[in-house]
Amino acid sequence: MTQQAAIALGVELRVLAESAGDSAARVISDVRVGDYRDLADLRDFAKGCDAVTFDHEHVPTEHVAALAADGVAVHPGAGALVHAQDKAVMRERLTAIGVPCPAWRRIATAADVEAFGEENGWPFVLKAVRGGYDGRGVWVCRSAQDAAEVLASGVPLMAEAFVSFERELAVLVARSPHGQGVSYPVVETVQQDGICVEVLAPAPGLDPERAAVAQGIALKIATELGVTGLLAVEMFETSSGLVVNELAMRPHNSGHWTIDGARTSQFEQHLRAVLDLPLGSPALAAPVVVMANLLGGDDPDIFSRYEHVMAHDPGVKVHFYGKEVRPGRKIGHVTALGTDLDEVRARARHAAAYLADGVYT
Amino acid sequence: MTQQAAIALGVELRVLAESAGDSAARVISDVRVGDYRDLADLRDFAKGCDAVTFDHEHVPTEHVAALAADGVAVHPGAGALVHAQDKAVMRERLTAIGVPCPAWRRIATAADVEAFGEENGWPFVLKAVRGGYDGRGVWVCRSAQDAAEVLASGVPLMAEAFVSFERELAVLVARSPHGQGVSYPVVETVQQDGICVEVLAPAPGLDPERAAVAQGIALKIATELGVTGLLAVEMFETSSGLVVNELAMRPHNSGHWTIDGARTSQFEQHLRAVLDLPLGSPALAAPVVVMANLLGGDDPDIFSRYEHVMAHDPGVKVHFYGKEVRPGRKIGHVTALGTDLDEVRARARHAAAYLADGVYT
Repeated sequence: MTQQAAIALGVELRVLAESAGDSAARVISDVRVGDYRDLADLRDFAKGCDAVTFDHEHVPTEHVAALAADGVAVHPGAGALVHAQDKAVMRERLTAIGVPCPAWRRIATAADVEAFGEENGWPFVLKAVRGGYDGRGVWVCRSAQDAAEVLASGVPLMAEAFVSFERELAVLVARSPHGQGVSYPVVETVQQDGICVEVLAPAPGLDPERAAVAQGIALKIATELGVTGLLAVEMFETSSGLVVNELAMRPHNSGHWTIDGARTSQFEQHLRAVLDLPLGSPALAAPVVVMANLLGGDDPDIFSRYEHVMAHDPGVKVHFYGKEVRPGRKIGHVTALGTDLDEVRARARHAAAYLADGVYT
Repeated sequence: MTQQAAIALGVELRVLAESAGDSAARVISDVRVGDYRDLADLRDFAKGCDAVTFDHEHVPTEHVAALAADGVAVHPGAGALVHAQDKAVMRERLTAIGVPCPAWRRIATAADVEAFGEENGWPFVLKAVRGGYDGRGVWVCRSAQDAAEVLASGVPLMAEAFVSFERELAVLVARSPHGQGVSYPVVETVQQDGICVEVLAPAPGLDPERAAVAQGIALKIATELGVTGLLAVEMFETSSGLVVNELAMRPHNSGHWTIDGARTSQFEQHLRAVLDLPLGSPALAAPVVVMANLLGGDDPDIFSRYEHVMAHDPGVKVHFYGKEVRPGRKIGHVTALGTDLDEVRARARHAAAYLADGVYT
């Protein structure tokens, strides 16, 4: 999807891929096959690039710092990126700058677990400090016994109090090395089993003052952490206000709606930001935009269903990621635009559900 | 630009390029270097493709027919494509199916020239039957002497009476092998020195009945000629009605506004049509869309001006074609969207003019 934006901007991409068959490698001419965990591969790759960025957070922080020390323009830099890689570092920093977070602490021993439970109540959540994604690396901890199993694995952990929330929101902002920042409208993300299934833009019925607070929090984090490129801030909306859940520093699933639904797609915005170009308008392209994730179903042969979806709703936009269908895997998304939330949401939902399973919802 | 659409649709493109440095070849992984005038190259290229199509009209008609005879799904087919290649064949056919055309005839001799001038008045236009483009292959003929020079070149010619028109319109339609057809809104194309400089969508102040007639003409041509893929029909609007000027059977400059300004871009629509998939919605994404062509100016280093344009108007969309800057060459386009024609047009015009020359208009 970044390639789509790069073509229009006149930017030539080079991709570091794990194999030549990776979905990004199949649509970009300049492909280097290598390991993003290997500094030598990263250095070879970066030679001649005007800027280097990421589409995931797993490049080791120290390698990002080493590239910057070599003189490579890496965005986001290691000092910012670590907050999207290490949840404890993120919580420490957000707490220090006064951003509302759930109660939390680092956990090393059974005594830490007991203390956290006494202070904040049971159950609570144990999280792997690094490497969690889409519900992986997260354990609900109902008792000392639950915690013991996770502790035994030796993974660095932290505890977070359960947040009793009304819904989940996300704010996508971009910040350039110059310091220019823009915020997209606040969206609602709808989760099922820890996976985002729908994004509603703008977040329906959100109080405009609260929306401004949410955008302010995201821009403050971007500025204080020195983020360059995109920053997605996932938040809980509770009866008493907003609490920050997670950070991502790259084009993010909660921003896929922008491809068809905003004047500037998040992919174009990310390229503009990491190249230190003036940022684009984040304005909505329609009053209501709904993105539904396309999760693989049991039948991998989706072509006939794809034809049905196109014929049924000529206005819906389907985006495939060039990935093989596996049950539950995000293989694409669907965007619908319009004026009436219920109607637009039903269209997006139907298209995604029918593509996955052939089931009409 | 077709690659941008292909990525989302999950369609893998292969391109036949004249060299590996061609702009399309630089953004597509599967590049075959060859000559589109060479049947052997075309046959090698087509092996394994589900469908073959064109981004220009210069592949020899007989080679297109030969590929089809080999069993390749070529869209548009030779029987349709010839009407976009040979202006005399096009005029014969349009006249036969009752589509309004300027007075015309094939010209082989000075006597033909005299006869046409007597019947339709001087001056008139001489056109090369094949190969004209952006004002090339067109000669204003004021006298028998003018014609003599052109006749002496030996190029097959036709004459067309001058049409006294109020403005130029264009209608873009798509038709699939199944026979499904859709029409985009009628647009006005603004020409300078025979080159399109601006496209206004929808055509301002166009009578809705006349718009429907224009769309009907374009869909009728697509059906009668058996066009598969896109068909752009350029028309003159005169005081007494519409007259068809030219046909193109591919994504066309008059449809570049659809990338940002319509629910389905012409590039996506062309892919859907040639793959016989259900067609997408041609609805406008805003009440007013203006596309301004970006013509190369005297200074090839446009980067600093590009930054200015991005900063000046974060909502304008600039598209570069990966071509070297040469004075007068189409190197990209700019699209602006909004509600007020004068304001939107001024934004698009400023961006294109400033990018070209650094001159504020």
